[in-house]
Parts: sequence; C-alpha cells; structure tokens
Amino acid sequence: MSTARRLPPAAQALIAGDRRTLARLITGAENDDPGSREVLRAIYPRTGRAWLIGFAGPLGVGKSSLINELIAHLRSLRKNVAVVAVDPSSPFSGGSVLGDRIRLDRSPDDPGVFIRSMASRGHAGGLARATREVTRLLEAAGFDIVLVETVGSGQVDVEIREVATTSVVVLVPHLGDEVQTLKAGLFEIADVFCVNKAELPGADRARRDLSELAGLGSVDPDWTVPVVATSTVTHAGVSELWQAIEAHEHYLDSSGKRVERERGRLTREILALTEGRFAADLSSDPSLARRVEPVLAHKQDPETAARRWWLERRKGRA
Amino acid sequence: MSTARRLPPAAQALIAGDRRTLARLITGAENDDPGSREVLRAIYPRTGRAWLIGFAGPLGVGKSSLINELIAHLRSLRKNVAVVAVDPSSPFSGGSVLGDRIRLDRSPDDPGVFIRSMASRGHAGGLARATREVTRLLEAAGFDIVLVETVGSGQVDVEIREVATTSVVVLVPHLGDEVQTLKAGLFEIADVFCVNKAELPGADRARRDLSELAGLGSVDPDWTVPVVATSTVTHAGVSELWQAIEAHEHYLDSSGKRVERERGRLTREILALTEGRFAADLSSDPSLARRVEPVLAHKQDPETAARRWWLERRKGRA
Repeated sequence: MSTARRLPPAAQALIAGDRRTLARLITGAENDDPGSREVLRAIYPRTGRAWLIGFAGPLGVGKSSLINELIAHLRSLRKNVAVVAVDPSSPFSGGSVLGDRIRLDRSPDDPGVFIRSMASRGHAGGLARATREVTRLLEAAGFDIVLVETVGSGQVDVEIREVATTSVVVLVPHLGDEVQTLKAGLFEIADVFCVNKAELPGADRARRDLSELAGLGSVDPDWTVPVVATSTVTHAGVSELWQAIEAHEHYLDSSGKRVERERGRLTREILALTEGRFAADLSSDPSLARRVEPVLAHKQDPETAARRWWLERRKGRA
Repeated sequence: MSTARRLPPAAQALIAGDRRTLARLITGAENDDPGSREVLRAIYPRTGRAWLIGFAGPLGVGKSSLINELIAHLRSLRKNVAVVAVDPSSPFSGGSVLGDRIRLDRSPDDPGVFIRSMASRGHAGGLARATREVTRLLEAAGFDIVLVETVGSGQVDVEIREVATTSVVVLVPHLGDEVQTLKAGLFEIADVFCVNKAELPGADRARRDLSELAGLGSVDPDWTVPVVATSTVTHAGVSELWQAIEAHEHYLDSSGKRVERERGRLTREILALTEGRFAADLSSDPSLARRVEPVLAHKQDPETAARRWWLERRKGRA
C-alpha cells in the first residue's frame, strides 16, 4: 500500500488542524487502535523534523512550572507548542495525574497550545513507545515543538534521551545528594543543564559547580553542555533557556548529529517492534505450557528450557 | 548433560557453605559469566523452596531499618537470613548505594547473615532477572529466607511481586498522597501491609484505614491481607510482622497457591529468556542496517519495516 497516494480521512482532518481528531487519534494510539495505526503509517512521511524537548530531573525541582513559563515565552514568539506529560508511576490505573500539574494560565481555546498527559504503561521503554507515536501525530497536526515532561525516576530519565532531540536536565540549588545521582545518570543524558529556583541562595554556586562538571566532557564530545539558571518566581532565565535549546537543535543540524541520533533511535524502535511480534507469537505457542512443567518440577532449569525452545523454533518456522 | 550426575566444584563449595564462593558466583551471575551460568544450571534442582520476602513502598518509610530489626528477630529464632538490596536508580554506574543503608549491627562474621546489594541494570524486569539468580545461589548456599529490598518507584514495586513469595508493602502514618499511589498500584501487590513508624501520631488511624481497604478484597480473593504496625524506635511489632509473613507462606502451601504463582513466574521467565535469544539474534542480523535506511528517509514507517522483517524471518529461518 503506497502511503503517498491517498490519505485516510482522519489523517486529512489531522493535517488540517482538527483538534478533536488529534485527541481521538492519540487515545487510539495509546490503545493500539487499528484506525490510529493506519493514520500513523500514512503520516509518517510528513514527520521527523519536529524539535522534541525532553525535561528530566528529580521530583520537586519545578519542571511543570518551568514548562508553563516556557509555553508563555514560546507563545510570545508566536510559536505553536505541544506538551506531553508522561507519568510512569501508575502502571495499573492507565491514567495519569501529571498532566493536571500543567496549569493552563492562558486561554484554553488558544489553538497554538496543545497539552496531553499520558501513562507510560509501566513498561521500560514505555515512555519511548508512548511518546514516539504521540509526537508524530502532533507533528502532523502542525506542532513542530513538543515539550516532553516526565516524573523523574532514574530509569525514566534515561529513557527521555531515547525520545528527545534535546534533553534538558533540571536541578535546583543545594544539590547535595543529587550530585550523586547526577554522576550516576543524569549527567550522561543532558544536552542542556537548567538550575531552576535560581531565586534561592546557593544558585550561583550550583551553576558554577554544574559548569565545571559539564566542562569535564559530555556524552557528545563536540557539544559543551550549557548551564542556564531560571526562576519561575522572578521569571528570569526562561528566554536564555530557550536560546540554549535552540542552539543545541541548530548544532544537531550543522554537525550531522541529528541524523546520527535518529538512526540509532529508529534502529532500536524497529528492533523493539520486531521483538514485540516474536514475543506475541511465543506467548501463543501451544507448546508453552508443556515446556514449563519440567522447570516447575525443578528437573530442568529455565535457561535450558529457553535454549531448547529457541533451537526448535530456529529449525522449524520462526 | 545431566545435572544430577556430578556437580561442578564451585557448586560443591557453594553448597558446602563457602561464603567467598557464594560472593564470587553472585558477581559472576550479575556479569553473565559462563562459570556462574553452569553452577546455576547445576544447582537448579536444589532450589525452589526458599521464602523470598519482598519489601516495597515509598522512599523514607524506613524499609532498611525495618529489615535490620527483622534480621535481629530472625537471628534470635536461630534462623539464617540473606538480604538482597536492589537499587534500580543507577543504570549507568552498575553500582549500588542501597546496600550501604543496611547497617550491620551484628558481628560481620556471623555466618547466619549474608547481605548483598546490587543494581538492577536499569531495565524493566531487571529486578526480577537480577534477583532470581541471586536468590537461587543463596538458597543453594543454605539460606531459605531471603529478604529483598528495593527503592520504591512504581514500576519496581510491581516487579517485586514477580520475585517474592510474600510481598510486604511498607507505609507510614499520614499517608496523604500515598493513598492515591496505593490505589494505583501498591494495593495490588500486597500480601502483608506494614505501617512502620507506628510511634508517630496517626498510626492507629492509618492501620484502621488500611484494614478497611484490605477488607475490600486483595489480588487473591482467598487471602485477607493483614495489617501490622511496627516501630524501629520502640521495637514494637517486628515479631508480629514475621508471624504475618509466616502465615502467608503457610497459606501458599495449604492453598496450592505457591505452585500456581511459581508456574506463572517460571512461564514469564522462560518467555523472557527465549525472547532474549531472539533479540540477540536480531541485533546481529546483517540486514538490520539496510532496513533502517528507508525509515530514516521517512519513506517507510517503522511498523511496516518491523512487519516485513518479521515475515521474512518466519518464512526463512527463525
């Protein structure tokens, strides 16, 4: 089926900017609905150029307030902006509480802003999977700036890099124990550091410490991670933060790193999708129950059971 | 290869109780070392009867202190006990900080206590994978009670049920927002509720609230989740906590639920191991790079690339 020939009506409505269609397709993508799948396939050629700005960092650093400030700033620059707030902490409910924290200080009718909260289904890689499809729908709907917020646990923070073109790591003065965390993980995902709550004492010190740390080298040796101080109380630094993000996005283009990073991400996406097909096939294999019994009786260990199953499948069909 | 015939020397030393061999094999299992693999295969027939007690709950509820009290209590009953402290928050370092919080208030030479901290490799399912193998080594070494502690993020808390025979959910008085979390997830994994810091005001109320919640039904409709109040300040409730854990373990045996739960866990373990073999094979498929390019050029969407790859492999070999 050629995707170039004719777009499904829902894809046409999406591209025309219909917000209700957008909302419906996002829900459909979350539920793995065939209609949304078809639209995602059809719009894929129109995607891939959006700036996906991820925000990582510990709870309580004020990510939501900062994103609110950033939305206001982007609107003052007449840019459209979408926000995806991912809450990985509620695997059972399927719901999300995080989105409620993004306060709509502007008219809810402003068509230049779209905010969506979602759960990441409690899986590792769930953030990437959920966000990837939603950002593609948003891009087709005309949003070429998407801010992705997540509640920070170590695992999810690392995942943000799998999704974002620019990862902003948000911290606050008096890092204390956080410096430990930083060294362990956050430091390795940052394209931009943001010291939020810069109105608090110790902000200058934190900024200097981070600049020193950033000077020691980042994941990308050709990019020096900038450190920006922001305050949602004094409204300072928000335009500087946006400039730092823009600088990184322009660097991705000029250095060729955008394509390089995207190749890595798409490789992992295709691998995960193909593995998913294998996993589904395996779960429905009628020999499964029979294979578990000797392991349950502790006559055969799980590794041996898995190795034999794999070899039999290799010999036979997939 | 028959596992019954002759045990590898390392397995013999392990079973004889050599602690240095135990420590070395655990490190080997973490690093996927072939020597440890061989031992795990050989000892598997001797495992499967240990009590694996998992502790879940938010940060700051005092899980480490509680586990310390429990170790002392178990030693007073002349029981051997091993502790595995899993820290899922440091995917990069590969190290672990959590184990340091288990204070050795007793002689470090006491052979009836073994404490090990480990990272969960930052993967979902990482807790299960890491803990499963270590607990088997511990059981072969003579520890039939293993306490598993983890830093609580929603995802990891759910995983504890995949590992533990009894899951203890630890909370503190004045739950507030935690009740929300509870309803979302923790409630569905608890075999035993523990209100720790019972010396604080509000403990009775919290206990009543939880009992009421527990009365509404648990994951297992035949088991009423007991609520125990403990204090590591007044040392109250620790023996009651252990009695509640024992009662649940005995219930697992008398009801047949131990085998039922274990069948589910082993089914998922065998599936995951077989999927892992497929994933490794897929990553080294020479056609991978060629398949990514049309997706990178946005001429083909990732789902279509994955579907075609899967169909081609099904037709050919695995």
